[in-house]
Amino acid sequence: MSTNVPIRVVHTGVGPVGCRVINLLLERPDLELVGVVDADPQKIGHPLEEYVPDAKGKNLKIEGNTTACIKDHQAAAVTHTTVSYLPDCIDHLRELARAGVAMVSSTEELLYPWLRHPKWSQEIDELCKQHGSRLLGTGINPGFLMDLLPVLANPPAERVRAVRAERVVNAATRRGPLQKKVGAGITPEEFQARIATGKFGHVGYCESGALLAAKMGWKLDFLSETIEPVISQKSVKTDFVDLKPGQAAGIHQVVLGKMGGKEVINLDLKMYVGADDPHDAFTLDSDPPISWRCDHGVAGDPATAAIVVNSIDRLLAVTPGLKTVADLPASVKTVSFKGLDFVPYY
Amino acid sequence: MSTNVPIRVVHTGVGPVGCRVINLLLERPDLELVGVVDADPQKIGHPLEEYVPDAKGKNLKIEGNTTACIKDHQAAAVTHTTVSYLPDCIDHLRELARAGVAMVSSTEELLYPWLRHPKWSQEIDELCKQHGSRLLGTGINPGFLMDLLPVLANPPAERVRAVRAERVVNAATRRGPLQKKVGAGITPEEFQARIATGKFGHVGYCESGALLAAKMGWKLDFLSETIEPVISQKSVKTDFVDLKPGQAAGIHQVVLGKMGGKEVINLDLKMYVGADDPHDAFTLDSDPPISWRCDHGVAGDPATAAIVVNSIDRLLAVTPGLKTVADLPASVKTVSFKGLDFVPYY
Repeated sequence: MSTNVPIRVVHTGVGPVGCRVINLLLERPDLELVGVVDADPQKIGHPLEEYVPDAKGKNLKIEGNTTACIKDHQAAAVTHTTVSYLPDCIDHLRELARAGVAMVSSTEELLYPWLRHPKWSQEIDELCKQHGSRLLGTGINPGFLMDLLPVLANPPAERVRAVRAERVVNAATRRGPLQKKVGAGITPEEFQARIATGKFGHVGYCESGALLAAKMGWKLDFLSETIEPVISQKSVKTDFVDLKPGQAAGIHQVVLGKMGGKEVINLDLKMYVGADDPHDAFTLDSDPPISWRCDHGVAGDPATAAIVVNSIDRLLAVTPGLKTVADLPASVKTVSFKGLDFVPYY
Repeated sequence: MSTNVPIRVVHTGVGPVGCRVINLLLERPDLELVGVVDADPQKIGHPLEEYVPDAKGKNLKIEGNTTACIKDHQAAAVTHTTVSYLPDCIDHLRELARAGVAMVSSTEELLYPWLRHPKWSQEIDELCKQHGSRLLGTGINPGFLMDLLPVLANPPAERVRAVRAERVVNAATRRGPLQKKVGAGITPEEFQARIATGKFGHVGYCESGALLAAKMGWKLDFLSETIEPVISQKSVKTDFVDLKPGQAAGIHQVVLGKMGGKEVINLDLKMYVGADDPHDAFTLDSDPPISWRCDHGVAGDPATAAIVVNSIDRLLAVTPGLKTVADLPASVKTVSFKGLDFVPYY
């Protein structure tokens, strides 16, 4: 990856996160955006700059056929920001596995698809190996803060017995769709009705727990997720909602993992309008215990777009197959320090 | 690495960190300590349990010949905790590179040997590739807190322009040799005399800066390290030193890296007796900025021993050669969740 030839990348999915990914791809000298695909007939055929102003002058049109786009533009990698649930994109994933590319996706359930979709996972893995593809699901959450990061922080710890991670997001500082997505401003009854749809709240959270357990080497015997509303105690007005006390302000989701009856994983996520002290934090119960904390927290959308883009060269460096974020090296970058003015103390 | 057969490990270097490594190797079901080597004729031939009580009943004697020990016990991996400077172990490293093993070392200069010893680095890399060996230098510092961790924390960040890392250690809470090593209780004049020996203070610190820069993809044009005493303002009595105001309490070392005249790396390390608010922290100057902090800090000796042991299976998973900590995957562990009691919310 230390050559000067940029990696040729096709992007699929021209939504809010996708547009951020495209912007980063356009900025990076080591990556070259060579094609863009979307499934929406309303977008196909339109110049990319209608959706991403920075694409002006790049002469890129949104295409409809992923395989053709990859082939026509000889892409080595694909970024994929389309849907959250695996059943909604399994055919597209099969197509990508056959295309001989490294695909980095923000599909939440793809973080650890062996949990809910073991047969599809095996099929995709085999297709990848057959066609020299690498498929990876990643993102900031799931994909980094509450699953990968505790694994990355684990090597200095002796005897890790349990992991606890915590994320508090003030949804008021996030885009409107997210505020709506967490149910800000609806009644507790409406909140329960949304839960019942099974398409509400933070997606891929059990996948975080499963990935964390698997990569710590813990054979869980119990894994659960709960969701409940955070009820607002105060009035909060944002550009998108006018929240009253007693209404739902957002979500509180908890994943628990147990091994031999003992809790070894506790992931606690609160995303709501008006949250105080937003932060990310995790603790390894080890000898000695290790806790890391990020005040204010890591912002979601830009971070997911950045992680997708920052995974491309690292994914190309591993063997073909259906991969997890734990399979990637920290960096494949190399530079020469020729001509370095080096002033060591010894 | 998901087989049930433990990895056969030879350990070299029966010092304070080495004994901790041995203890961890004895504990771990996935690793099997099959041989122990030391260069000290006073130790060779003695039962390991004289130095590591937990080795009682393991029937392990300290041997003197690394190659013979690896061969006799069919070891796949070697842990190596002997010296800090590369020139003091280059012959041993050549021997290990020829032995067809995965060797994890705490030798500080081995973190990024291309900086000070490019010819040896190339020679060792070629020997490794020829003989199917993997050699890795790691540890908590250098090797994790002030170099690898900012690289690991980088993927969610857009446009990282600079990294600042900070480590404050209260040496009073550490073992006696470390308190002496940082110069606690000596006069400022003695401190300067020790600096002049070039064998004083924290070793491998420029290597931290070089690794961080290389793995961020930054071609530095300037890299420097400074060292100065922290002068005690108060009296502090530990089990090992009786510190008076005006004496050196410990060290303050700073590594600076610049690119195009701009500071992009600033590593600030203070290790002294009586330090308030010990902690580890780093900040990425990015969009948005990201800061992580570990209150109390990560303890050095146990962490280095743990990192060495926790790198073995991951090093075996990469291609042969002279490697850096940034080359390793986060985890190569896999578990089956067969029989998992799975209670998802959706």
